[in-house]
Amino acid sequence: MVTAAGALMAAEIAEQPHGLQRLLSEGGAATHEVARVVAQRAPRFVLLAARGSSDHAALYAKYLVEVQLGLPVGLASPSSYTSYHARPDLRDVLLVSVSQSGGSPDLVATTAAARELGATTLALTNAPGSELAGAAELHLDVMAGPERAVAATKSYSAELLALWMLVAAWRGADLSSAGAVVQAVAAHVDRRPEVDEIANRYRFTDRLITTGRGYAYPTALEAALKLMETSYVSAHAFSGADLLHGPLAMIDHSHPVVAVVPDGAGASAMAPVLGRLTERGADLLVLGGEQSLDYGTTSYRLAPLPEDLAPIADIVPLQWLALRMAVARGFDPDAPRGLAKVTRTL
Amino acid sequence: MVTAAGALMAAEIAEQPHGLQRLLSEGGAATHEVARVVAQRAPRFVLLAARGSSDHAALYAKYLVEVQLGLPVGLASPSSYTSYHARPDLRDVLLVSVSQSGGSPDLVATTAAARELGATTLALTNAPGSELAGAAELHLDVMAGPERAVAATKSYSAELLALWMLVAAWRGADLSSAGAVVQAVAAHVDRRPEVDEIANRYRFTDRLITTGRGYAYPTALEAALKLMETSYVSAHAFSGADLLHGPLAMIDHSHPVVAVVPDGAGASAMAPVLGRLTERGADLLVLGGEQSLDYGTTSYRLAPLPEDLAPIADIVPLQWLALRMAVARGFDPDAPRGLAKVTRTL
Repeated sequence: MVTAAGALMAAEIAEQPHGLQRLLSEGGAATHEVARVVAQRAPRFVLLAARGSSDHAALYAKYLVEVQLGLPVGLASPSSYTSYHARPDLRDVLLVSVSQSGGSPDLVATTAAARELGATTLALTNAPGSELAGAAELHLDVMAGPERAVAATKSYSAELLALWMLVAAWRGADLSSAGAVVQAVAAHVDRRPEVDEIANRYRFTDRLITTGRGYAYPTALEAALKLMETSYVSAHAFSGADLLHGPLAMIDHSHPVVAVVPDGAGASAMAPVLGRLTERGADLLVLGGEQSLDYGTTSYRLAPLPEDLAPIADIVPLQWLALRMAVARGFDPDAPRGLAKVTRTL
Repeated sequence: MVTAAGALMAAEIAEQPHGLQRLLSEGGAATHEVARVVAQRAPRFVLLAARGSSDHAALYAKYLVEVQLGLPVGLASPSSYTSYHARPDLRDVLLVSVSQSGGSPDLVATTAAARELGATTLALTNAPGSELAGAAELHLDVMAGPERAVAATKSYSAELLALWMLVAAWRGADLSSAGAVVQAVAAHVDRRPEVDEIANRYRFTDRLITTGRGYAYPTALEAALKLMETSYVSAHAFSGADLLHGPLAMIDHSHPVVAVVPDGAGASAMAPVLGRLTERGADLLVLGGEQSLDYGTTSYRLAPLPEDLAPIADIVPLQWLALRMAVARGFDPDAPRGLAKVTRTL
């Protein structure tokens, strides 16, 4: 049977509203139970360990934990544990490992080491039977269903929602407010033709910059990774602040910039960045709300959502963008050259 | 008076052995004093806050603190404090802010907030009279002397050495072993012609990937930033492990890769990555030692140094590379378009 290039990835992008609704409906009890155990331990510090797309989900969780739980957070460097044999004192620490497959050896080793070193360990995976799920004391299933495309899409949004639910349950909040995000994801899924139109603009570019700030920065990073994996475009994500510290110099009218700026405090912080990009003559696609749409050479209106929930929905048009660019260039995003679904690094 | 393009940057690269020797000779007493206060407070966690080149110095410090002090570490996101008003409980936390100018408003705000929230705060700057130095309880001067080129060079290596000295003093080690690194820096400074020769290879590329792992990863990030700032090349740094999670797909024979692999545990972890890059036909420049030189299409031999000290020396050939590429392309690295020396982001 011959299938269209990117058929798997397209199907998995489209499945997201269904999977997220399932997680919200069926995952609440397990989330509350894990949150209860974690809250009882009262960790003073949270460490997050992940790779690839899951690392962007971990960065999203970093903002949630810092802002909503008031706990200092770090992103663990697996190589500190696996190559340099770091043995930090991790009592009072919660280590959250995030992985679609649960099969990455460096995450398993980091999680096992952290558990020995006194941390409360929680694995958040799409694979409850995985080695990582077994290595951690606690586990949460993101319930995205088997992901077959090499480029993670539905597992990414599911990781974000599962992390949001964990933090919400931990601080004693109601999970039902996430219902709005499922609707927003469904609306973005239906707007595929609008993104296809925008993608035409990038048919012949071989480099592209993505940017965002705060909660939207992980979306910029994940969009860049999707573009690199599937379209082989040199896509480079910068936080809005970092962009002004050097990389701005390389931007001119021949360098498209994609800015993710949902309304909120992040958009206010991005306004001067968008202004500087415009001054430099950048070709600017704004995915944003009222505060930012006018800065764009091209724009895509994002649904109004609370800023902490927006990343779960805002990635969807960028998944469509990566898919469309790959196919337009003659590549099959379901079979990216040089990649396997589970990456085994130590 | 007409000066050659990049004359300032060249002079500051060449000044590094002198500045580092000064820091080592004259900065020891202040370092021991700050380390004594910090050790007395016995922080359980370390947070690092920085932007741009200093953020790469902070990442280097993250490895030092995790591996050598056994403390969990996080890189603070200033926007959590400035945009989202995060107010985490920072008792038992040491916040180290790293900044050449000490003038970045978001770092000043983050440091002031952290101090109010109970953290021990230390600013490490090249500007003892700066606002950041005043906002922190403790200060260390990296003693690089006034830096006039927009692209940070001598202040970067000085930040690395100052952070190494702080961690060494904190764990009660002797600082004199850093003497070897000053000699290594001087040797790299003298090898400018060798790098100029290598730079010819990249005259016409407009994108380039840098990679390294563990202690060498900050060097890969800093090299990419220098190239973006001065040559306007789309230079993108990946940790060796992350490269295999997706970005590998975009690499083929038309994409040069620069790998920083000084001998040690990091080089062992990089061996499979270098093998995969070779399989994909990448044009590979290896800056490395015995373990890795043979992987390179082109190579530059790094001086043998302890892995934790190597980053202070290994950045020097990459500074020369950025300078040479900029000048060869007709740009003046002392006046990069669109950049100011002090970046004011909130």
